[in-house]
Amino acid sequence: MAILKTPLAFTGNPLDRASEKRGDVHWLAEKRAEKSCRILPFWRTQPLLFGDQEGQGPFELGFLDAQTLCDLGVPDGEEVLLGLHGSAARFARDVSTLEDPSLVGPLGAFREARPAAALLAGPEIAILAQGKALLEWHARTGFCSVCGGRTVSNEGGYRRTCTACPAEHFPRTDPVAIMLVTDGDACLLARNRRYVSTSIHSTLAGFIEPGESIEEAVRREVFEEVGVRTGTVRYAAAQPWPFPFSLMIGCYAEAVSKEILVDGTEIVAARWFSRREVRDILNGLHGDVSLPRPEAIAYHLVREWAEE
Amino acid sequence: MAILKTPLAFTGNPLDRASEKRGDVHWLAEKRAEKSCRILPFWRTQPLLFGDQEGQGPFELGFLDAQTLCDLGVPDGEEVLLGLHGSAARFARDVSTLEDPSLVGPLGAFREARPAAALLAGPEIAILAQGKALLEWHARTGFCSVCGGRTVSNEGGYRRTCTACPAEHFPRTDPVAIMLVTDGDACLLARNRRYVSTSIHSTLAGFIEPGESIEEAVRREVFEEVGVRTGTVRYAAAQPWPFPFSLMIGCYAEAVSKEILVDGTEIVAARWFSRREVRDILNGLHGDVSLPRPEAIAYHLVREWAEE
Repeated sequence: MAILKTPLAFTGNPLDRASEKRGDVHWLAEKRAEKSCRILPFWRTQPLLFGDQEGQGPFELGFLDAQTLCDLGVPDGEEVLLGLHGSAARFARDVSTLEDPSLVGPLGAFREARPAAALLAGPEIAILAQGKALLEWHARTGFCSVCGGRTVSNEGGYRRTCTACPAEHFPRTDPVAIMLVTDGDACLLARNRRYVSTSIHSTLAGFIEPGESIEEAVRREVFEEVGVRTGTVRYAAAQPWPFPFSLMIGCYAEAVSKEILVDGTEIVAARWFSRREVRDILNGLHGDVSLPRPEAIAYHLVREWAEE
Repeated sequence: MAILKTPLAFTGNPLDRASEKRGDVHWLAEKRAEKSCRILPFWRTQPLLFGDQEGQGPFELGFLDAQTLCDLGVPDGEEVLLGLHGSAARFARDVSTLEDPSLVGPLGAFREARPAAALLAGPEIAILAQGKALLEWHARTGFCSVCGGRTVSNEGGYRRTCTACPAEHFPRTDPVAIMLVTDGDACLLARNRRYVSTSIHSTLAGFIEPGESIEEAVRREVFEEVGVRTGTVRYAAAQPWPFPFSLMIGCYAEAVSKEILVDGTEIVAARWFSRREVRDILNGLHGDVSLPRPEAIAYHLVREWAEE
């Protein structure tokens, strides 16, 4: 089992990132000034979503023109170029200094990004991921980690330079290994301490550390978290995960030992599930155990294995 | 073609990272004080290598005990836990404040990391990658990017906390997509402006951006750099690349267009090579074109495709 067939949430961004042009300040200013330019505001990591007055769908990303934003009294803030839609530019703007986010009320509402993702069409979810990850990186990179000086954004938001030293800073993407451990007709699902619901069981996952390959990170994390040794690791798919700016690298890992010893800190419970049990969980027929939502790659790693 | 068979340089680290223990300051101090503890000094990103007086091999990483480092007059500096070798701890120390690096002369010499990698056995190259990436991250993270305050290292060097705000900072690993573009019996090799030698041709590569999957980054980079559209992308292997702290994610990408238009900024030349030509290059029979050294994943992406 390898290579997922299902398109994953947060992938499929339809915009042309125009990365070869965004270093040109004149081009950027022109694109920003065009009437066709649209700007997606984010308030404290929440994107604006259009929808009807009662909060009913269909929903779409709340791209507005500069004049409308100005008329509404939406403040200035860090802006990043998302890319081009045809020849029209699309930006995202951090409007976190806005005190009353309800002033956009007639148009829609700012919504938490993760539930928002479940309300949007695929291409829009991907744009949301790009904008959120970039703006969160900017919000955390106002100062230079090398010297402590102030930094300023350039290249349409894909670089920050220090005003006090020669350092340049580029958007950060944290690679995470996420893996379904399998043993023939069984797979390992675990309950993480952070999960709100006690029924949710999922794959294991962890950040890839300096000096590790993906496969090495998979084997280390599995052993640390549940004490199981794994052998063959197969890449399955990757998913941008803007919480705040990770890249989930999904894999299948074959167990070479069976005994489970949970670490007790991150993982509080784990056990082997038969393929039949997993199918029951997927069909909602297993009372005590549920899986993460389909926005998460974990769901698809489990489902495609179960349906194999 | 997918999944490389050859073990890659910088992988195969034999140390136990003991990540579940390194948050325990008492355990860490005890391990550091044990007689069996060894420390690998890095001077301005260069690891100490043992070798004979004439700079001849065999070479090995210059792990020293704390007393020897003290006796030599090697200064204190940021230290990170590499892991455990059996029960003995292994650390890396940044000794960049050392004014005269030749004072370690009787024991060996500090050497540039990339040529050093070619001199060492596989497991030691992986330890070098881990130490270099971590220490370079520390050297660039003395200040908090959120507030500009000073940061301090903890968890054995796997976290820095701000002394002025609640921010925590974790080691950075930049995922890079690196891909051999193929079209049946031909593959695309390109010359990057940064290459010193005009003969070297290699695969294309670029940083994965926020909101992109690996496969999307591959297709975007290939189109930007050489104007070729690609369809199916297959994961081949990953390699930690400590210059300064990347993770190379190697792929094969199938071309769906053939005409090449180099970007002229990053890529200065590119063309299609037949499998026969590539075999000649690998055998040193092609006068004008050579490949990167075997430490680089690019070499193996090309070689395994050519030998298929």
